[in-house]
Amino acid sequence: MNKQQLIEQIKQKKSFLCVGLDTDIKKIPQHLLGDEDPIFAFNKQIIDATADYCVAYKPNLAFYESMGVKGWISFEKTIKYLNEKYPNHFIIADAKRGDIGNTSAMYARTFFEEMNIDSVTVAPYMGEDSVSPFLTYEGKWVILLALTSNKGSHDFQLTTDPQGERLFEKVLRVSQQWGNDQNMMYVVGATQGRMFEDIRKVVPQHFLLVPGIGAQGGSLEEVCTYGMTKDCGLIVNSSRAIIYADKTEKFAAVAAQEAQKVQQQMEAELKKHNVI
Amino acid sequence: MNKQQLIEQIKQKKSFLCVGLDTDIKKIPQHLLGDEDPIFAFNKQIIDATADYCVAYKPNLAFYESMGVKGWISFEKTIKYLNEKYPNHFIIADAKRGDIGNTSAMYARTFFEEMNIDSVTVAPYMGEDSVSPFLTYEGKWVILLALTSNKGSHDFQLTTDPQGERLFEKVLRVSQQWGNDQNMMYVVGATQGRMFEDIRKVVPQHFLLVPGIGAQGGSLEEVCTYGMTKDCGLIVNSSRAIIYADKTEKFAAVAAQEAQKVQQQMEAELKKHNVI
Repeated sequence: MNKQQLIEQIKQKKSFLCVGLDTDIKKIPQHLLGDEDPIFAFNKQIIDATADYCVAYKPNLAFYESMGVKGWISFEKTIKYLNEKYPNHFIIADAKRGDIGNTSAMYARTFFEEMNIDSVTVAPYMGEDSVSPFLTYEGKWVILLALTSNKGSHDFQLTTDPQGERLFEKVLRVSQQWGNDQNMMYVVGATQGRMFEDIRKVVPQHFLLVPGIGAQGGSLEEVCTYGMTKDCGLIVNSSRAIIYADKTEKFAAVAAQEAQKVQQQMEAELKKHNVI
Repeated sequence: MNKQQLIEQIKQKKSFLCVGLDTDIKKIPQHLLGDEDPIFAFNKQIIDATADYCVAYKPNLAFYESMGVKGWISFEKTIKYLNEKYPNHFIIADAKRGDIGNTSAMYARTFFEEMNIDSVTVAPYMGEDSVSPFLTYEGKWVILLALTSNKGSHDFQLTTDPQGERLFEKVLRVSQQWGNDQNMMYVVGATQGRMFEDIRKVVPQHFLLVPGIGAQGGSLEEVCTYGMTKDCGLIVNSSRAIIYADKTEKFAAVAAQEAQKVQQQMEAELKKHNVI
């Protein structure tokens, strides 16, 4: 999916919500455990229930890999289901990969060619040759970690150089030599508040993937105030607050309600900032 | 495997070689392609042929994940085979993971509990809470990326702060508040030459995992001159130069010869530096 198509989806749905499919066998409703593939059964119902309110889905690979081979089967089925039934939803493999060139190329092949996923999250620590193999696919995206939502983001990402540039700002600046706003986004945590102002100084046009509202406590309003562009420029993720809102047989219906609530807040923000 | 056991293995085998199982279906000998699981068939023969000359094996997850579910099956079979037949070999899952706390905890569970792997490579960009979940397992190790072997290592890892501390040095220094030389190692590329001197100033006792000899061009002698400790303190990896040394039916025998050559150079270095 290219940038223009993504913007159209956002305007059409009045939503920039991404539903995080962090599906944990220990947290899904009991009644699904008898299913042949409980993880996929859960995802399928969550997807069907929330598709009208979101523009993207983001399975975090860790949750699938923790189940070994079974987990990969559930992951692949989920991606296949999304590709077939919801081709207009943007798919993010939250993998946080990044390795030497030939190895990153293997990952790119897996996610983009074999699985037809739209984007992959990538860690920047290893620099250009760990990122650029992901940038050679038309209509596919790298989502580079910049300023993450967790407490540990302060350990290294805020380190300044002698000119006062912080590491996350250097990542934003330098990586623009590798890609552009048509094939690169950045992860910026919703918990970072006014830092979005500083980020927009370096990347005024890029889309940002914003985790951390909901369970992690970030504010949607604040993110929009400081981070929204004329084209929206934001994909805001919520995982646990939506998918685990209810643990009974009604889980999918409750997830839909929660997703709709967020969508309505997003619609208000899009109007407030004159995007729609 | 704890540190003392690892040192004993090194002294006993007169080797600190790690064989990288970067097994690519496009590069393995043709005659294996008819096998039910060519990747595992290749690994099994490589392992049997090289086990006497090395102390560790390092499958890079990217190569397995690029094959999807099939790849994960090959990976799990390889780990099971190593655990059963070669319990004294140190296993490194070269995964370069690192995510928010609850997600890193999922990865730790997969690799350490379910698969009984000794260690996992982790990227430091997201800071403490992305690393510490891996440090709660007795006898298990985090191998944190510090100064990698690739060209892109210069993009961010060498960034200095106003006091002149480079990012990789900060990673080495700060991460010692999270773990110690009994549960943490660092990745330092063999291509980094004299930088090993600077690294040893910050982490004089820690083991370093050193990729980059062989195909990537690093020098074993230089690594030992500047990086070896009284307990060796090095695990040096070679992947392509050993496992793809020959592509005929003799591939395993040739891999053994190549591994033995490296082992003999390592034995000389261990003697030169009075480790054995």
